[in-house]
Order: sequence, then C-alpha cells, then structure tokens
Amino acid sequence: MREVTVSGYLAERLRQNGVAHLFGVPGDFTSTLIDGLLAGGQQRWVGSPNELNAGYAADAYARRRGLAAVVTTYGVGELSCLNAIAGAYAEQVPVVQITGAPATGAAGKLLHQTLADGDLGHFARAYREVTAATEVLTHEHAAEQIDAALATALATSRPVYLSVPADVADTMTDAERLATPLRTNRVDAAALAAFANAARNLLKTKDGQVTVVAGHEVERRQATRELRALVEAGPLPFVTLVSSKGCVDEDHPCFAGVYWGDLGVKSARHAVDQAAVLITVGTLMTDVVAGAFTARNDPAATIDIRGTSARVADETFEGVPMHAALAALTGLASDYATLPAAGLPASAVLGYRAEEEHGPVTDALTQISLWESLEEWLPRNSTLLAEIGTAFWGAVSITFPRNTAFVAQPVWSSTGYTLPAALGAGLAEPQRRPVLVIGDGAAQMTAQELGTMAANGLAPVVLVVNNAGYTIERVRHRPAASYHDVAPWNWSGIVRSMAPHAHTYRVTSRSELRAALSNASAVPDRMVFVEAVLPSADTPPMLRRLAGRH
Amino acid sequence: MREVTVSGYLAERLRQNGVAHLFGVPGDFTSTLIDGLLAGGQQRWVGSPNELNAGYAADAYARRRGLAAVVTTYGVGELSCLNAIAGAYAEQVPVVQITGAPATGAAGKLLHQTLADGDLGHFARAYREVTAATEVLTHEHAAEQIDAALATALATSRPVYLSVPADVADTMTDAERLATPLRTNRVDAAALAAFANAARNLLKTKDGQVTVVAGHEVERRQATRELRALVEAGPLPFVTLVSSKGCVDEDHPCFAGVYWGDLGVKSARHAVDQAAVLITVGTLMTDVVAGAFTARNDPAATIDIRGTSARVADETFEGVPMHAALAALTGLASDYATLPAAGLPASAVLGYRAEEEHGPVTDALTQISLWESLEEWLPRNSTLLAEIGTAFWGAVSITFPRNTAFVAQPVWSSTGYTLPAALGAGLAEPQRRPVLVIGDGAAQMTAQELGTMAANGLAPVVLVVNNAGYTIERVRHRPAASYHDVAPWNWSGIVRSMAPHAHTYRVTSRSELRAALSNASAVPDRMVFVEAVLPSADTPPMLRRLAGRH
Repeated sequence: MREVTVSGYLAERLRQNGVAHLFGVPGDFTSTLIDGLLAGGQQRWVGSPNELNAGYAADAYARRRGLAAVVTTYGVGELSCLNAIAGAYAEQVPVVQITGAPATGAAGKLLHQTLADGDLGHFARAYREVTAATEVLTHEHAAEQIDAALATALATSRPVYLSVPADVADTMTDAERLATPLRTNRVDAAALAAFANAARNLLKTKDGQVTVVAGHEVERRQATRELRALVEAGPLPFVTLVSSKGCVDEDHPCFAGVYWGDLGVKSARHAVDQAAVLITVGTLMTDVVAGAFTARNDPAATIDIRGTSARVADETFEGVPMHAALAALTGLASDYATLPAAGLPASAVLGYRAEEEHGPVTDALTQISLWESLEEWLPRNSTLLAEIGTAFWGAVSITFPRNTAFVAQPVWSSTGYTLPAALGAGLAEPQRRPVLVIGDGAAQMTAQELGTMAANGLAPVVLVVNNAGYTIERVRHRPAASYHDVAPWNWSGIVRSMAPHAHTYRVTSRSELRAALSNASAVPDRMVFVEAVLPSADTPPMLRRLAGRH
Repeated sequence: MREVTVSGYLAERLRQNGVAHLFGVPGDFTSTLIDGLLAGGQQRWVGSPNELNAGYAADAYARRRGLAAVVTTYGVGELSCLNAIAGAYAEQVPVVQITGAPATGAAGKLLHQTLADGDLGHFARAYREVTAATEVLTHEHAAEQIDAALATALATSRPVYLSVPADVADTMTDAERLATPLRTNRVDAAALAAFANAARNLLKTKDGQVTVVAGHEVERRQATRELRALVEAGPLPFVTLVSSKGCVDEDHPCFAGVYWGDLGVKSARHAVDQAAVLITVGTLMTDVVAGAFTARNDPAATIDIRGTSARVADETFEGVPMHAALAALTGLASDYATLPAAGLPASAVLGYRAEEEHGPVTDALTQISLWESLEEWLPRNSTLLAEIGTAFWGAVSITFPRNTAFVAQPVWSSTGYTLPAALGAGLAEPQRRPVLVIGDGAAQMTAQELGTMAANGLAPVVLVVNNAGYTIERVRHRPAASYHDVAPWNWSGIVRSMAPHAHTYRVTSRSELRAALSNASAVPDRMVFVEAVLPSADTPPMLRRLAGRH
C-alpha cells in the first residue's frame, strides 16, 4: 500500500480542488501540520500578521477559486479566525479551517493555550456553530474524515473545520484513496425529471413573462455559464441582486438591472413585478439584500434553484444540483413566453445614479463624484472589492465594465473584511488587478494586510475613503456621537511603512482623484494607494434609501 | 418605583465595581445600548479599531482594577472578541463581554450579520464555551440577569457574556435594586473554622518548614496585602511563579525567588522542595508555569487556597474565600516552624541571569544585554507588560523594582495580547507608566492600538524586539522555516503615522538602547517607541531551558 502523511493527504485533496495557497499564522501546535502540508509542494504558504485577516483572505480566495484553506494554531489562533469562518458560512463560501491541535492524549493535562480545565473540546464546539462539518482527526480515520469534510464543504458551499492533533498530522495513511476524486453534487435523475416536469407545468399554467433572478450562489457554484445559457435560450430578462452584482456582464442585452425590491431601480422592479413566473437561482433574501424586505416573495409563482436542490411552487426536489437544474430549464426554452427579439429596451437598464437628482458638476469630491470617477475609470477584468460601509452602496450603484469580478459581504457585513480579501483575490487570480474601496474605519481593522500584499508582490489599487470614522453607523443613529470617530492615521505614512514601493496619493477633489486613478493604470505592477478625503456626513444615495427604511 | 434603563442599570453596576471605561467597537446593533450605557456618565468610551484589541485591553484593565467591560455588536463584532474572552477565562480575569444584539422578535428573520438561518443563538452558544455565565437579557428579568452574571464574574474571577437585544437596552427596570451591592464571596463560618482546624492539624503533623507559593490568583483577588501579612506573621519564605511574578515586592526579606520546578533558580527550588508543608495560594500549574510539569505536586503536604474554596491535603472546604483563608492561616502563626529572624540568606534570591554563563561584556545588543539594560533602567511603579514570546522569558529572568505591576499571559499565551493590554493597563492606572516589551511578529498582530494609546493621551514606553518574525516558534521547531518570518515593517514610520507626538528610536547596540531608555525617562508624558534590532536566532536563557523540555 502506498502511504502518505495525513497532512500530505490533506494537501493533495486541497490541490485537486484548486487550492494553490495556504493562508494562516503558525503557532505552538502547527509545526508538524504545516511541514507536512508544505512537504509535497502542492501549496505555497501565505503568512498573515493575524488569523482574522488570514481567514478573510481565504474567504475571498475561495470565492474566486471554489475552495480555500486557512491554517491556525489551537485556541489562541483558531478563535481569532472564528468571525471569518462565520462570515463564510453566512455568505456560503467553502473555506477549510485547519487547526493544528495538541497531540492526542493531551486531554486532561493543564496545557498552555487551553482553558486549563483539561477539556480540549471547547473550541471545536464553538466552531460547530459556524461550520457545516467539524472533524477532529484521528489516527484511524483521518483520510475518511478529511474526505467527508471537504465533500461537505463543496456540496454545501459552506466552511468546514478540521482539527489536526500534532501526532495525527504526520501519521501515515493510505494514498490510494487519492486516486478517486471527491464525490459531490450527485444528480438524482428521477428527481431531476420530476423537477423539469413540474417546472413545465408551472410555466404552462402561469403562461406569461418569465424573469430570472440571479443570486450570489450562482458564482459560488461556478454556474455563470449555465445561467447565461438559460437567459439566452429564452431569451429571458434577468436581474441580479446587490449580493450578486456583476455575475453576468451588465451590458448583456437581457440584463434588466440590479433588483433591490421597492428601493431599487425601476427597470429591475418592473422585470420582477410583471413576471408571471420567477426563476430564482441561488438567492438569499436577507433584510439588506431584499431592499429592507420589500422584494417580491411569491413562492407559488417561483421556480427556486439552490445549490443541491430545487423547488417549484411548494414542491421541493432534492438531488438536483444547480448546474443540472439550469440545464433542464434551458431545455424548456420553447415553453417560455419570450422577450421581443430585440431584447429589453435600452432605456430599461438604468443605473441607480440615473434616478438621482444631480446638482451642477463641480470639482468637489463627494460620494457621487467619487463613484462617477470610478465608473469612468474602472478597467475591464478587475476584481472590485467594496467594503460593506459607504463603499458597498457606492459600488452597487455604478455599472460595471465587462468581466468585473465583485467581492463584497452584504450578508455577513463584517467591517474590515475587504482589505484582507484583496490579498486573497489577488493570489487567487493573478490576471485580475484587485481594486479595493474601503472606509478608513474599516481599513484600520485589518490594515496589516497592506504589508502582506506587498510582501507577496501584489499590485492592487487601494482607495481608502477617509471620512474620519464609521459613516455607515452615523447614517443609522446619532451622526454626531463621538463613538463613531476613529483615531486619525497618516495613511500615506502607514502604506509607505508596510509597502515601500507603493505609489501613494491623497486626493481632495474630483480632478485629483481622476489623476491618481489614471496614474494607477500607468503602473500595473505597483500597489497604488489613494486616500480620498470626504465629508464625514456624505453618503451614497442607496445607503440613504436603506437608512430611510431602518 | 424609581426606574432606570437596562443599559443604565448595567453602567451603574459596572461603576460600583470599579469600571470607569468601556472598551469596544460600535456596530449596527449597539446604538441604544451604547447610548444608554454612556447616558449617566459612569464610564468613558474607549473605541478601538477592532474587537480583539478591545477585548485584550479590557482584560488588562480588569487585572488592574478588578473588573472590565468590552462592548461589541452581534456576530461580526462579538466573534472577533472571542479569543480575548477565552484568554480571560484561562487566565482568570473578570471581563464582561457585552453584545448589542438584534431586537427580541427578530428570531426567524433573515437578518444581515447573522448566519441567515433564523437562529440567533449560535454565538451565545459559542460564548458558553469560554465564559462562566451567558445571559441573553429579557425585558422581564434583565436586572436580575445582570446581577447574576456580574456576581459570577466577581466570584469566579472569570469572564461572563451579556447579550443585550436592542429593545431591551432601553426598556425600564427597577432602580432600587442598585442600592444593594452585589453579593460575592460569601464566607461559610463553619467551613472556615473547619479549614483552620484542618490546617493546624496538618502543620502539627508535618512539623517542619512551611513555604508559601503565591500564584496569579492572588492579584486577581486583590489579596496581596493578606498574603504579605501571612508571610510576615511566620515569617515564612515565599516564592512566586512566572505567572505571578512581582505580586509582592521582590526585595521582601522572605522572598525566595520565582519557582519554576526543576528548570528554575536554586533558591526557590530549595524553598519548595525542603518544605514540610506548602501553602499554595491561587496557583494554576500548567505545563509552562510548572516548568514543563517539573514542579512539586504533593497534595498530602499542601494547604491549597483558591478563590472561593480551600483544601487541606485531600479535604476541600467550600465557602472559604481567599481573603478569609489567608487571614485564618495568619492567625496560626505560632504553629509554624519559622524562619530565622534575619530572614532568608541574602544569597538565596538569585536572578535567573546569575545562574547563566556570561561572556565578556560588549556593546552588542542581545537578549541578555537587552534585559540587563531594562533591569537597570526600569523605574519603580511601572506596569511591565511582556509578550509571551522571547519578551516574557526575558522579563521573568530579571529582578523587578519595588511596586512593579506585571501583565502577561503565560497560560493563554495569545500572541499580540500585550500591545492592547498596555492601553487597558494605562487607562486603569494613570499613575503607572506602561512599559511594553513585545516582538515584531506579535506587535504586527495588534499594532492598531498604538494609535488608540496616542488618541487617549497615554505615554507608554514601547520596546519592539525586531527579530524578523516568530522567534519563539523558531526555538521550538525548524528555525529556518520561512513561515516563521513576517513581512518587514518600517516601525518608526508606523508609529509616527499613528502617534505623531511619539519619540521613536531604532537601536542596534546596548549603548543605544540605554540612551533611548534614559531619554524615555526624560519625557514621561510622551509615548516613547524603541525598535531594538536583535539577531533572529537569539533567545533568552529561560526560553532555551523550556524548549529543551518540549
């Protein structure tokens, strides 16, 4: 029997599923684990200054590549990462949290980096609350446990937790299993046929316009191509959500805009409200995504496609993965009431900005002129990362150029996420330049990764909106309260101290911002950092709409 | 009936127990909570850039004042703080984690900043693993729940968790309860008498030298004065542990040194090994504290005093708090075999350094010359904070001047703890200057609080030992592995960007270090930052002793 260490087995399984980097922070219990993971050269180590940041980076990496892993030490390491893993759960991102743990047999001993009560199960139990699977590896079953956990991560598009005791990490296990790929997303042929039949019946019964609503799970499941095939087979109008914006190019002739319930643009509202049947694909209608719960919710007229199941009106079909369900619906094209051959009227796809009142164009730097400038400048093939504060609501109000990848966290909404996410996205797809827009309060949370990006040779464009604190909270409540303020930092100094080769700018007008962005395009291999100074009370129009409903 | 808001009630209970500052980060669910907490002026808000840092600051504050509170928002906030609260549990520090949560009745809704599964209980359950009490406040019983949780924190010297739904925060509750102080540490008179009797019998039976071992709970329980009374009543020799070093002045005539099992200094080993009876007071003998489990463990010859109970040989007495137990033992002074009137021989109290071989004195900056310089310089009445890496093992090898407060985390050992801890300690005791010694890898974890200290007008002396990474991990395993490295930062630039009024130094020799420290004394109202560049493989002698046992 050919054998491999447990950690080597894990590294190979990760490689088979697209993982070429390991994020993390070493610690007292990770030595054998990290050595074993790296021994075969399947992954490159990407150390971060702290575990939360490493977890955020892994999350973004998994969004762009389908899986990621973050390695921490027991207790003091893994607990710092819990927020990132909970975020991956909420946002449906398959991240493998790998903990290097005390050796088996340590239970009962009063070890440092434990609660010193002899119970080594506390932290795995905490992780059980925020993961789809939790495994503490054993000498006997480590390979099966690894396979089960990774298969769960892929099948559910959720994070999983692997605790690897120091002595299990280098125990030997059967390498032959590695020849068989992990099995995920089994299709139940009978269920698929029944689903297609039910869908056809609903379409016949309702007999009217069909609109497709593409949610964030379309990208998580790498089903963008299948989605496009469906809308083009009709052709059918489709909308995205603030959580899935850009998953299909926004100049697509069937695109009706970003749907945000009653708070959103007219074209998307119209497409959804007038539809006789909605095909919702991987949507998750939380308060924020659903326009403060104003989105249409009409199960009787809905074909709802999820990761591994589908629903037609009140009937659910298990064993019907998203790819298969989309293909089946594409096969029903002749049953749809179709769009005019010319597609949607060109005027239908309005940006949010087009619905707002504008004053005279000046050189003042405001939320509106900042996002107008970014919309003009943003190059194709970028990854746009927008922090959940004012940045996110500005980003979803502009039209994206072709092949824009969009990374944000509208469900979990953990402040500080996107700065480490730019590290993860940049390593996941070296051909895409990360463009990060983040507020100063958020950037202070996780600023360390500016240094990590520099150390890893990444060249993102980082735009920090300096409005002296948590403006998104000011919008909600008591704008003048001093607890919304953050301690002022000299951002250029911070960046130069962590990323000495970066180009830095501080801009206070629209023309200065434009010049800085233009210079960024001229140095594609350098980090470019732009501090944009804005009034602390200025907010994007969409955020004001949302705040008006809260 | 006089009434007060639930948050106002909580603020007043905190004030009654010494809490004058609230650490934390605001968020979407904290508005009514923070407004209500601050309305009465009992505490001042101390915002941190992130929640983990705020939790660490609260931990150090509680060590110096007996209680602390950290305020975070639900989910995305509280989870980032979990590591800090777990540390408070492991190290026995009473921190109140206060979470602003969604309003009651939100369960089942798909809210942002939740796992979007309708279950709002996940994070309280995670906290249950690392706290002594977990309460989700209700409209009906909020005041009782607050009192129960705070009483538990004080009685157990452990952290507790309060989740405050947004609508409960400003519900009204009975203010009259506030006139009755929280009851903690009840004394059971019969148990106390039985304990004293059992102790006397043990002392008579054993009839030999009695040595006192002071553990970290002596300071947590504010029992330093009672401990000193006991050792002086004998007089009895006493030792401290690496986790309790400095809890009594080290020039005390009864001090026999820091006891660290077989790895430690001879004087302390002698005092412990030769004793017929040990009185252990608030000790927790983890692997690291117990000198890799080489410390004497002899229950039959031990009177063990804990926070709220005591044990004599194999008999445990509940309802005997530490203060009462120490007073009872002090009353038995005539039963002890005493020290010679002149106290211990002066040669007994050896520093660890004195046992090491030294080469010729040069101007090279090494772990040994760094700590010699600090030992010469460290002013009385400082708070010395030593990060668990090389800094901690250097700090415990020197002799402290009088009235030195020592803050470190040898049980939980979470890298990055001490930098935010300097913020907490500095606010807790404005009359003590924080002196922080921390490695560069650790300082990168939580560097943001340099800015928070500056914004709060603190003037710590911060010494960053720049050895290009995690030297404590290099000692354990594969010193040359690149995963021990961290991305290089320009530390002076970082500090000037966050704390513009700080004095910064970069020193590479013993004489430069001495000059920088001397300058630090000359500017007591300024932050002084010293980057000390050391070889990455150099380690303090005590750490080498420990590594030899691992």
